[in-house]
Amino acid sequence: MTTPRTNFIGINVSGEHVRAALVDEHGSIVEGRIGGISKELIPQLAAMIEDLRSLQGSVAAIGVAVPGLVNRQTDRVEFPRDLPSNMVEDLHGELTRATGLRVEIENDANAAAYGEYKVGAGRGSRNLFYMMIGNGIGGAIILDGKLWTGASGFAGEVGHITIDTEGLDCVCGNRGCLETVASAPSIVRRARERLNRDSTSSLSRLALNKSFTAEDVAHQANEGDDFALMMIERTGKYIGTGVASVINLLNIELIVLGGGVMDAGSLILNPIIQEAKRRAFQPCFEATEIVAAKLGLDAAPIGAAMLARDAIVS
Amino acid sequence: MTTPRTNFIGINVSGEHVRAALVDEHGSIVEGRIGGISKELIPQLAAMIEDLRSLQGSVAAIGVAVPGLVNRQTDRVEFPRDLPSNMVEDLHGELTRATGLRVEIENDANAAAYGEYKVGAGRGSRNLFYMMIGNGIGGAIILDGKLWTGASGFAGEVGHITIDTEGLDCVCGNRGCLETVASAPSIVRRARERLNRDSTSSLSRLALNKSFTAEDVAHQANEGDDFALMMIERTGKYIGTGVASVINLLNIELIVLGGGVMDAGSLILNPIIQEAKRRAFQPCFEATEIVAAKLGLDAAPIGAAMLARDAIVS
Repeated sequence: MTTPRTNFIGINVSGEHVRAALVDEHGSIVEGRIGGISKELIPQLAAMIEDLRSLQGSVAAIGVAVPGLVNRQTDRVEFPRDLPSNMVEDLHGELTRATGLRVEIENDANAAAYGEYKVGAGRGSRNLFYMMIGNGIGGAIILDGKLWTGASGFAGEVGHITIDTEGLDCVCGNRGCLETVASAPSIVRRARERLNRDSTSSLSRLALNKSFTAEDVAHQANEGDDFALMMIERTGKYIGTGVASVINLLNIELIVLGGGVMDAGSLILNPIIQEAKRRAFQPCFEATEIVAAKLGLDAAPIGAAMLARDAIVS
Repeated sequence: MTTPRTNFIGINVSGEHVRAALVDEHGSIVEGRIGGISKELIPQLAAMIEDLRSLQGSVAAIGVAVPGLVNRQTDRVEFPRDLPSNMVEDLHGELTRATGLRVEIENDANAAAYGEYKVGAGRGSRNLFYMMIGNGIGGAIILDGKLWTGASGFAGEVGHITIDTEGLDCVCGNRGCLETVASAPSIVRRARERLNRDSTSSLSRLALNKSFTAEDVAHQANEGDDFALMMIERTGKYIGTGVASVINLLNIELIVLGGGVMDAGSLILNPIIQEAKRRAFQPCFEATEIVAAKLGLDAAPIGAAMLARDAIVS
């Protein structure tokens, strides 16, 4: 007979889905659940938690990763992306009351960074910068083994560093942000703009489709389509420009790149590394390793569970 | 009779001058010396140190700020600006042997940041980002009361973040770096380019002069010259763009701006703050104070002395 283990529950809430996982103390997923997000978020989360709690061992705490900024002073969620404010702003309080368990709330990029740091591509390092490149571009900083969340919990917003002073308007109010050219929707926009002028690519027909996505571009690039390859490579150069600025500012030894845009694999990772090398200070670049994330969509729930675990221990 | 105090010596070596100061344990300068830099740097420094040591109390350690990157593993100076490598690369070893005192070597922007943090504009804070805007643009990060020097001692190079992907070539090998448009020499270059087209400014005659400097532009701006004001304001906007990227990445509560370009005072500080406000995430901007440095050219020697003091204590 084995001793019952202490587990943790890690949850990632996004605009579309809720992912919940029972995670053991070493960061391995014991069991996972995924569902479309419901308007009654708290009862939905409470039911998922109850379900996972009934499976195995005891659950010591819950970590929740949210698509918004978490105010360290109040534990409240500010500026949520893709979700109405009132659905998530007091997730901490409501979930604590609904479950009776200790709850930690963290920004999704921060949680994913912590997951990669503990059991993914950052395992064994002490300092890393994590970038999540998907519908938006988020980031997070781990220094000396801890999340560096900044004065009010918002550090790591690498998607909103200016790489072109006169560039396109960004949702954040700035212009020329990295996100305006390297996020998944901006890949779609740039591809459509070019395809209006150049119709020899196999993407031309796809791009007419309303549901045309950055994944289509990556897929065609993997099939060897020249135009799609060029789009992915150009995107990699933009990301590499942002990565070089991070390297010059932080002289950090590890940069982990995750999010859907990185699913293009080496087709995008190589131009990112080349551009970072071209733009960063040589001694800083040489001190940095740039790698793809390893945990995919599991990074945020695992990271949230590990943050919940480490909050108890510390 | 007063008890003899323990003092420290702080030195700043630049391409042109050596500044040395006897600094008390609270960071106040007891006595300062300045000289043109000689090719026999070690004997010159040893003589200045001997002179200062003879004045008052005992000297416990020496800190030296250098215009180059200091490798944490080897204490050697790499990539020195404005000085031949062999003059400074083993300053640590040579000065230790020449004086018999404990010597700390630090990058000049890092030392100046530490000075401002301990006794200048950053006094009382725990986290700050320091920018030194002069012939080049350097920077340094203080997190939780300590210099964050990065994996190899090179963190803080804010002058080389890309703000224009297709911008001018930079000395660092990159293009479109902040330094290419906001350093003192780039103010001169931009002013000359514009004055070739526009000769109504009182700067037109000055700009023909070989010794025309960024200080001339600041001086004329203070006198109310429209063109000079526009140049300073534009420079402030570029710096503010870099400041906004730092704010979004680090969510840091204090940004201290020093260096010769900041001598233009509120004429440049105001546009910096306005542009940072326009470009940074609102909640991050609101958590940040942006202020001018207080110690001027004393920042680096005071900071070097304080680093020497704190290395003994820790």
